[in-house]
Amino acid sequence: MTETFSDDRIRQHRSADATVTLTLDGAPLAGREVTLEQTRHKFLFGCTGFELIDLANGTSQDPEADARNAELWEGLFNFATLPFYWGRFEPERGKPATEPLLKTAKWFADRGHPVKGHPLAWHTVSADWLLDLENEEIARVQVERIKREVGDFAGVIDMWDVINEVVIMPIFDKYDNGITRICRDIGRIPMVRMVFDAAREASPNATLLLNDFDMSAAYECLIEGVLEAGIKIDVLGLQSHMHQGYWGEEKTEAILERFSRYGLPIHFTETTIVSGEIMPPEIEDLNDHQVDSWPSTPEGEARQADEIERHYKTLLAHPSVEAVTYWGMNDAGMWLGAPGGFVGLDGTPKPAYDRLHHLVNDEWGTPATTVATDEDGRLRFNGFLGDYRITCDGRQVDFKLEEAGTARLDIALD
Amino acid sequence: MTETFSDDRIRQHRSADATVTLTLDGAPLAGREVTLEQTRHKFLFGCTGFELIDLANGTSQDPEADARNAELWEGLFNFATLPFYWGRFEPERGKPATEPLLKTAKWFADRGHPVKGHPLAWHTVSADWLLDLENEEIARVQVERIKREVGDFAGVIDMWDVINEVVIMPIFDKYDNGITRICRDIGRIPMVRMVFDAAREASPNATLLLNDFDMSAAYECLIEGVLEAGIKIDVLGLQSHMHQGYWGEEKTEAILERFSRYGLPIHFTETTIVSGEIMPPEIEDLNDHQVDSWPSTPEGEARQADEIERHYKTLLAHPSVEAVTYWGMNDAGMWLGAPGGFVGLDGTPKPAYDRLHHLVNDEWGTPATTVATDEDGRLRFNGFLGDYRITCDGRQVDFKLEEAGTARLDIALD
Repeated sequence: MTETFSDDRIRQHRSADATVTLTLDGAPLAGREVTLEQTRHKFLFGCTGFELIDLANGTSQDPEADARNAELWEGLFNFATLPFYWGRFEPERGKPATEPLLKTAKWFADRGHPVKGHPLAWHTVSADWLLDLENEEIARVQVERIKREVGDFAGVIDMWDVINEVVIMPIFDKYDNGITRICRDIGRIPMVRMVFDAAREASPNATLLLNDFDMSAAYECLIEGVLEAGIKIDVLGLQSHMHQGYWGEEKTEAILERFSRYGLPIHFTETTIVSGEIMPPEIEDLNDHQVDSWPSTPEGEARQADEIERHYKTLLAHPSVEAVTYWGMNDAGMWLGAPGGFVGLDGTPKPAYDRLHHLVNDEWGTPATTVATDEDGRLRFNGFLGDYRITCDGRQVDFKLEEAGTARLDIALD
Repeated sequence: MTETFSDDRIRQHRSADATVTLTLDGAPLAGREVTLEQTRHKFLFGCTGFELIDLANGTSQDPEADARNAELWEGLFNFATLPFYWGRFEPERGKPATEPLLKTAKWFADRGHPVKGHPLAWHTVSADWLLDLENEEIARVQVERIKREVGDFAGVIDMWDVINEVVIMPIFDKYDNGITRICRDIGRIPMVRMVFDAAREASPNATLLLNDFDMSAAYECLIEGVLEAGIKIDVLGLQSHMHQGYWGEEKTEAILERFSRYGLPIHFTETTIVSGEIMPPEIEDLNDHQVDSWPSTPEGEARQADEIERHYKTLLAHPSVEAVTYWGMNDAGMWLGAPGGFVGLDGTPKPAYDRLHHLVNDEWGTPATTVATDEDGRLRFNGFLGDYRITCDGRQVDFKLEEAGTARLDIALD
């Protein structure tokens, strides 16, 4: 694709013009070849990490395939979302499945990838045993549950989708569940306050998100009410499951314009773009679309690759966006059986994989490159924000580009 | 139509089983014929009063037709809404058209009909001269404008649609206007607080409404945010323009269920049901539907009469609803040229007029009726809440049925 206005804006918001002066034993390292490499993006290129739980726990059915998946995952991503759906995490009251998730979270953390837990409160996949409790008791165990998970995972997971889909929560009418009951009872804002207070108390420095799929004025009104009520939200989470077709730049930019008005960082928390047939537009709840088979097609894969590029570029071009989390790398096991992954059912990367890989690692990244310092020991380069490493004669030094614009660094190689 | 469950509920919430003991000179008025009549409903059967401004001001082009309209109006309605659209009320800054509206409001008030002003703040039909002002100045004149109108009309108009359509207000993008500018700038809830504070200050006992056409979760979220922020709303206004077809009982009841959760009285503030073709469903902003001619049809009029009955019955059956305001009695001059009135272009009442007239005055009202007291001077009857008059030998006495249930009154005819 050709250079566009959004490429300019991406570079403006995401990169720095760096001047690095290298010294060795106090003297400028003049006219020397060194290797420059970006080792990590500041921008969070996220994905679900559900698929790597077995690998992290040593319970792989197919260790080779899982190892390959891990390699593919790290080729694109630097930020994982792990599942804390209450009904699966604690199907029997008092027996939370903490251990395997903690191992998985540590697996990612050990590789330097921050991890987010999703979600701590939601009316879907909630625990069935809540239905036997009075509302006051449901609220109490919801609070306790949040404190337990946030506390147990602190230091490994320090970012949480605290509550999911509050706009629809009190009027959700597909089936009875404990969370809708209490949200209807106490109201949306007291519900948000209750769960955020619990998470904040358990981990005062954690990054706490409000997350929703509703991109209408309803979510704006909810956010405004929550903020006016004095509840501190760290990040706004916007879902973007596009099973019914890519939104396009105009819609995405309009959404960014509306939700950036609150001065909060934005995460695109759940992105899906399918490489097969598009789900019919008349379906309101995506869960209602049940098909036996939903194949990925060559035309679909070409289209998906283009749309992935357009979507990621639109998001990186807006300064409020700090993360994009893709909702599943593999078609295998994907929500609704959709061919929405970067990797097909046979384990082969799709064109979208290669496209995003090129963007993240080449166009926006700096692969290991040999460069020469000038007569004053200086390197000048434009680099995307994040972590860098310079290697020279077996010595190496790490540094960061933290802010867009101009950066001047003096670095000693001693 | 046959008696239904909603008829039972209407009677349960709207009527009282009254036992009235009449005395004359301290003795029971036993075995005497008297005339019993309901003179006013407590329920507010409202309509726009725009059409009677000329009559009230003595500026009628056709005094006979206007007098006939007034008669038709009072045959159905006991509550008027008058227009305070800023762009028409004060097209030139500093020259508000207070006088003709005050005369009109007094005309209604003199006849015992409460009057509501609509609206004090809205992004549509707002004053063009606001566009020349800085945002801070727009906010200041908006506040002043509210205090001026609420103060000038106090005692005649004590009920206001303070602000209209806040859900869409800050993201309204059809055209630039001063009100959208300040709402985008300060946010929805501070906007609501600002205008409610101004109205409350100017008239502490006035009844103040928040009004919207958005019946989605967005309006719920707005309401919850406003209430959590401690802003006192007296009544929730729900519009129900049905140019795209009658909602049906199920949708209306679901809306009533959702919006009655806040414990506030509900007014259906703007109701339209057309007696011609239905507007296509794909039109999002009703203002986009511009047609040369939109005739009323015999089939449409029969359907409208049935739907009017069903809509009013559904609303009266819900205890939270205190008012229904119909958005125009006459097809002549109706919004969008829609055939939505009770009276056709030729001035003839449609079937819907007769249907609602029968409901309001006969089925739910008590026309002047001769009844006899028993040997203890008692009358027993079931009557809809409101004002009553008993006449006997040239003496008359007025009383009220205030609360649904059972009422016992002792009334002296002296």
